[in-house]
Amino acid sequence: MRHSGAVTESFPGQSLPTLIDAIRAGRLTPSEHVAQALERLAADPFNTVITLDVERAMAAAAALTDEATQGRWRGPLHGIALGVKDLIDVAGLPTRCGSNVLRDAPPAVADAPAVAQLRAAGAVIVAKLHTQEFAHGPTGDVAATGPARNPHDPTRITGGSSSGSAAAVAAGYLPLALGTDTGCSVRTPAALCGVVGLKPTYGAVSTDGVFPLAETLDHVGVLTGDVAGAALAWSVLNGRDAGAPVAVDGLRVGVPMDDYWQPADPAIAPWPAAAVAALAAAGARVVEVRTPMIDELVATYPLIVGNEAYTTHARWLARRPADYQPLIRERLLSFADRPAVEYIQAQRTRRRLVPEFGAAVGDVDVLVLPTTRLRATPIGAASVPIDGADVDVRPAMLALNSPFNLTGWPAVSVPAPVDGLPIGVQIVGVGLDEYGIIDVAAALERAWR
Amino acid sequence: MRHSGAVTESFPGQSLPTLIDAIRAGRLTPSEHVAQALERLAADPFNTVITLDVERAMAAAAALTDEATQGRWRGPLHGIALGVKDLIDVAGLPTRCGSNVLRDAPPAVADAPAVAQLRAAGAVIVAKLHTQEFAHGPTGDVAATGPARNPHDPTRITGGSSSGSAAAVAAGYLPLALGTDTGCSVRTPAALCGVVGLKPTYGAVSTDGVFPLAETLDHVGVLTGDVAGAALAWSVLNGRDAGAPVAVDGLRVGVPMDDYWQPADPAIAPWPAAAVAALAAAGARVVEVRTPMIDELVATYPLIVGNEAYTTHARWLARRPADYQPLIRERLLSFADRPAVEYIQAQRTRRRLVPEFGAAVGDVDVLVLPTTRLRATPIGAASVPIDGADVDVRPAMLALNSPFNLTGWPAVSVPAPVDGLPIGVQIVGVGLDEYGIIDVAAALERAWR
Repeated sequence: MRHSGAVTESFPGQSLPTLIDAIRAGRLTPSEHVAQALERLAADPFNTVITLDVERAMAAAAALTDEATQGRWRGPLHGIALGVKDLIDVAGLPTRCGSNVLRDAPPAVADAPAVAQLRAAGAVIVAKLHTQEFAHGPTGDVAATGPARNPHDPTRITGGSSSGSAAAVAAGYLPLALGTDTGCSVRTPAALCGVVGLKPTYGAVSTDGVFPLAETLDHVGVLTGDVAGAALAWSVLNGRDAGAPVAVDGLRVGVPMDDYWQPADPAIAPWPAAAVAALAAAGARVVEVRTPMIDELVATYPLIVGNEAYTTHARWLARRPADYQPLIRERLLSFADRPAVEYIQAQRTRRRLVPEFGAAVGDVDVLVLPTTRLRATPIGAASVPIDGADVDVRPAMLALNSPFNLTGWPAVSVPAPVDGLPIGVQIVGVGLDEYGIIDVAAALERAWR
Repeated sequence: MRHSGAVTESFPGQSLPTLIDAIRAGRLTPSEHVAQALERLAADPFNTVITLDVERAMAAAAALTDEATQGRWRGPLHGIALGVKDLIDVAGLPTRCGSNVLRDAPPAVADAPAVAQLRAAGAVIVAKLHTQEFAHGPTGDVAATGPARNPHDPTRITGGSSSGSAAAVAAGYLPLALGTDTGCSVRTPAALCGVVGLKPTYGAVSTDGVFPLAETLDHVGVLTGDVAGAALAWSVLNGRDAGAPVAVDGLRVGVPMDDYWQPADPAIAPWPAAAVAALAAAGARVVEVRTPMIDELVATYPLIVGNEAYTTHARWLARRPADYQPLIRERLLSFADRPAVEYIQAQRTRRRLVPEFGAAVGDVDVLVLPTTRLRATPIGAASVPIDGADVDVRPAMLALNSPFNLTGWPAVSVPAPVDGLPIGVQIVGVGLDEYGIIDVAAALERAWR
């Protein structure tokens, strides 16, 4: 088995653009690439897979191989193996959401729009990937199929909830995976596994065919090995060209200074600082930003998620409580019988404070900050000791991400060039869109190579 | 007193464009016009006024008169008297919302954006006008200052909640008034008082500075004596030009056929039919429309309004229950302690069914239907007998309007050319925007003159 132990290189996989070049040049066929992905996924020791779709994937790859030999190309992802978080519908496969509640789910009738777009661009869906049960939590270690394991240390979490998507890309099994992000669920596992995770603007990618966690916060996103891969995937999902690239020279970079935004793990802080320094060295102007409303704003997050998620699950919780993982059941049930006033008030506070937050951030192009307050923690740990104090894992993984689900702004997590447990640096688009933050992330990646 | 009894002409006031022409031509000064409006409002027997702003209005009119003599014009509404529903902030005046809860409200610090836009275009705010308490109800007869009275029969309701706005325009006191419409509150009083009422697209006019009834349904709208007045007011609020006028020839007119859409009062049905016939005679194509999901869709309306309104009032209801009108207090309190699930589920059903409703309506340009199921009913009556059966007043006033608050589509109510109690015909924009439905309304108005 190739990956029986931990992955030691920061990213052992091939990058998406490199694979595409190889396929276009005829050095690699879609059949070879897909077979290799399937083989690696079948031998996976990190528990990233829920369903492998071997026969259909190989048939699709064979057809794409034939077309390639005839010089016919479906699109920019021709022949590329794609993994899909098992919260997102793929036609013909069940969507089980990491839960025994959906153990016997029927095959989905249609692809979710994001899946359909990537498939139309030539991608081959090879697997449905591990997710925290119903995407409810940032760790990736609570699911019907057991915990996902971090390729950099299998005793540690992947982060979640797009656990399998991040780990399968990090392990080099797949160049591209789809995930979802309601409060951190693309960016945190990307950071903890050392890959790139892009959460687009709220509403930019349809959530049709995606099992909801909380509909006013849910986003579909992508995980890739490098920034160029994310750019390519985004061009397919977005459907419009990038326009002129964003120059780092003159870029206004906001750095949130409040205590709220600081990491807990002392190994993390140097890297967002290094990112800011690298951008400044290339001509960016650095602006210190203060956000006094952040605590009140993020206090709305659990109320919105909790009430929306409970509404979705109320009937199943009543009829089939034993089919939930105990931790997720408890978390959901803690929102039983909550008053409508609490939820409506939380949404009002959100609507009031998002513009205030925007005004406090000002006219910066991006914010640069850590993706998480902790690196990957031991599987099952609710808290970890840092400098003699216990730090709760869940808020440490959510806190620096969820504000941008509340605002809906685009954000990308880029791996810092570290050995050992990965660290993510987050770039949030304020004045810039997805293409813009991808350009900034690419500049960082180049500076760090 | 000019209007001690009922108004017998269908619209005794001067139309907004006619007044503007007179001011522009120097036949009428802003001071004369505003003084006349204030005088009429001061002598009003229909209880339309909450606050008259005599001194500031006369000072503003004097300044506008001076400017006019110098050929300086602030905008298309130069010198025009404007009334504002007392749910909407006017700088320097209290916003009392028809309630003793706000008996001692301090003066508003700033104009609501809609007020500011009309003021910047030259309008002179002369009065804050009667509203159903906190805009909660379609009748206009429940308020701290007593019932508003219909100028066509003072024993009957104006409709609500923009009761004073509709009645003051209908009585000829004012050429223009601002109202709000959460479920019918511009269109129903317009229909019952025989004036034009425009509810724009959801979100097209800011609701900042407007006391909320239900934030996901609230709209700001205008009431005028004729369609040309509504067109002028809309051009100011919208800020963009109309573009080419919509031709009735070839217009696709949808007529909702389900029982749900039928009026209760047999005097009403001939008029939407006459409107459709008039449009067809001018070349419109008539399409019968069926909306099987309408009952499920409108069932979400009371749950959304009730829960959002209760959230706003919960504290006051606990501390100052006696300051509410008993009927409004009961209505609000019926939503105390409702579960969040009910509200979230109602919003989900709404989001699911609005596209279905749109698909059922198809590619028509407009829908044409009655504005209300009843004409103005006796003040205080909860139901009225029609053909031996009791018809509840509230749903009869709401039912044909609230679907378009749920969808957010623009709609305008135009008075039919009737003697006696007025009847409104509603034109709803499906393929057309506000300017488009105004053009269709203008075609009807011309056909009926």
